[in-house]
Amino acid sequence: MINEFYKEMTGKESVIRQFFDYSRKRAAELGSDSVLNFSIGNPSVPAPQALTDAMTDLLKTVDPVVLHGYSPTLGQPTTKKIIADSLNRRFGMNYTPEMIFPTSGAAGALSHALRAVTKPGDEVITFAPYFPEYIPYVTGTGAKLSVVPADLNGFQINFEKFEELLNPNVQAVLINSPNNPSGIVYTTETIDKLASILYKKQEEYGHEIFLITDEPYREIIFKGTDSPFVSAHYDNSIMCYSFSKSLSLPGERIGYLAVNPKAKDAEKIVPMCGQISRFTGHNCPSSIMQFAIERVIDMTADLSIYEKNADLLYNALTEIGYEIVKPNGTFYMFPKAPIDDANTFCWTAAKELGLIIVPGDSFACPGYVRISYCVPTETVERSIPLFKKLFEMFK
Amino acid sequence: MINEFYKEMTGKESVIRQFFDYSRKRAAELGSDSVLNFSIGNPSVPAPQALTDAMTDLLKTVDPVVLHGYSPTLGQPTTKKIIADSLNRRFGMNYTPEMIFPTSGAAGALSHALRAVTKPGDEVITFAPYFPEYIPYVTGTGAKLSVVPADLNGFQINFEKFEELLNPNVQAVLINSPNNPSGIVYTTETIDKLASILYKKQEEYGHEIFLITDEPYREIIFKGTDSPFVSAHYDNSIMCYSFSKSLSLPGERIGYLAVNPKAKDAEKIVPMCGQISRFTGHNCPSSIMQFAIERVIDMTADLSIYEKNADLLYNALTEIGYEIVKPNGTFYMFPKAPIDDANTFCWTAAKELGLIIVPGDSFACPGYVRISYCVPTETVERSIPLFKKLFEMFK
Repeated sequence: MINEFYKEMTGKESVIRQFFDYSRKRAAELGSDSVLNFSIGNPSVPAPQALTDAMTDLLKTVDPVVLHGYSPTLGQPTTKKIIADSLNRRFGMNYTPEMIFPTSGAAGALSHALRAVTKPGDEVITFAPYFPEYIPYVTGTGAKLSVVPADLNGFQINFEKFEELLNPNVQAVLINSPNNPSGIVYTTETIDKLASILYKKQEEYGHEIFLITDEPYREIIFKGTDSPFVSAHYDNSIMCYSFSKSLSLPGERIGYLAVNPKAKDAEKIVPMCGQISRFTGHNCPSSIMQFAIERVIDMTADLSIYEKNADLLYNALTEIGYEIVKPNGTFYMFPKAPIDDANTFCWTAAKELGLIIVPGDSFACPGYVRISYCVPTETVERSIPLFKKLFEMFK
Repeated sequence: MINEFYKEMTGKESVIRQFFDYSRKRAAELGSDSVLNFSIGNPSVPAPQALTDAMTDLLKTVDPVVLHGYSPTLGQPTTKKIIADSLNRRFGMNYTPEMIFPTSGAAGALSHALRAVTKPGDEVITFAPYFPEYIPYVTGTGAKLSVVPADLNGFQINFEKFEELLNPNVQAVLINSPNNPSGIVYTTETIDKLASILYKKQEEYGHEIFLITDEPYREIIFKGTDSPFVSAHYDNSIMCYSFSKSLSLPGERIGYLAVNPKAKDAEKIVPMCGQISRFTGHNCPSSIMQFAIERVIDMTADLSIYEKNADLLYNALTEIGYEIVKPNGTFYMFPKAPIDDANTFCWTAAKELGLIIVPGDSFACPGYVRISYCVPTETVERSIPLFKKLFEMFK
């Protein structure tokens, strides 16, 4: 008999998906000019030419039996070393290759990290607004996800509510900075305060609390932003990374997790990930992608368009009257809707104006709206009169 | 705190791994000529040039934003169609693209298929000898794996024991033909008998029993072999495939599952797999690999060496005196050790002769030995005097 739990889920399309599907339907009916799609976080700039060149050269020069052969269970040793060296060089860390585990993007990294440091029945805390996929990532391990309400003033951390939620059953805390959907980077002050609470609570509870940091937007941080490397501030930490956004490679499913060498049982965690893979059917990411990453480790796609779009859109929208915490990273911003019901607001935008934005409810932040501006700047420019018209409809 | 279950597992290297590691250690100490390694199922022939050409051309001609962009959750539609068409053309089936779900190799396919048709607490039956990774694949879903003892006469199915084990808690049966480690293909007679028992038991128990077929060796079947396409013989079936062996791409993690269109709830299963991925952190396989597969769908690497090696080794070993069921597919054969304790036999072979073969115990077939002959023919030739010497040591 088919599994009822997963069967039931297929009926429930995510809200983001509903808006995305509407945009496709509208474009098919009325033409692609009738839609300005700000619903999806798919990078709009190409991967760097150096990546294409690296892959082409690997195909030309490396024995296919090696190039496409099984990776060792814990990842290509050369790739692991190059990742560790880059992190050490850039962030003053002391990763060894043994602390690096290549994964199928950040999703793979998170699902391994969570299984490594929780057991079924444990509790994991995250902070609103948060990426809705954290629910299946966490519940898939058998743990429970608890959510700290948003700090609506600046989308940092609501520490009062965090301390209220903390309890001895919490084995891990999951953060995402730069943040999807707010576009905000946690400051050094925020990270240090978070670390000091966790250190104190570890002592009080008599067990480790691991900090899992989801950092796919780490390379998309705007000029002048205070952007601490989180693992430098807290020992029991596992950093989850993806090259999806920095190199515009989301379909290639390549990322890694990096275990803080100072973490308790640090040397055990990557070998445990090799065991976890067997239970989830994950295995290593593509071998050619691991080899290719080695050659472009410190490069990115041309990410400058995201900051340009952010400035343009933020300035125009605040002038219209929208309330927005100014983003300092990613390619999202998260304005407050001018009415309480962001769902109605977004459906009106979609149906009346062809402006596709998504309500913040599924990010645990009702009343707010996510705008994904990983689109050509011209699309941002065309959207501004529509955002104005929309605002006026609800004034 | 780190997870005790996975931590405990890291101490327990698989037996295959122990032999493989010994072979590397010995080669490092005594030189690579001191080892003939028959322990690992890593294809020894290169991927076809057409695959290299396809990938090179994709990199040259396709917009990188498309080439490396997110796949739809249920896989690239064009890839799904090409896979379905190929299966229909070759095996007289009626797959639609909606029945195909691209995965990270057969491991990904099996972990999705198992989750789709079982729930925690259910029972899955497989047949010895079997691939030891079935244990984590099945237990990772929360189900229990039961194993039917081997039919030692021909490595078909021990139906008497199968019927004894069947009970209403069994929701899925998992088979692997062509089989790792026996090298045997299930005959039409075997498949039809299996199907008729399952049809009868479905009626008796009042629920479906899904047949999950693990077929990574489907393209490595020797001349003249009766090799039925299993899903043509049983409606409630899900076929799990990998391009790892047929195209020599094990590191690229590309495969698929194909839901029999006649299965109960067939149209629900692929959408359910899209949900399952969210809980395991799997997502789609690499996008460039999906596009590349489209262009080489009916090709294989030059697999003829495997049959050549099989003939050479089978003839030589039986002449020496080994008892072997003649393989008719894969690149494995599974002789009986001349003593009861295959573990001692294999360690003697490794340490005295540098001949690396693995005991059948972990395939649930004690007293037998797996030889992986995906090696150059010259290696097979050099091994024959050593197999003779080994046999004489235990005569």
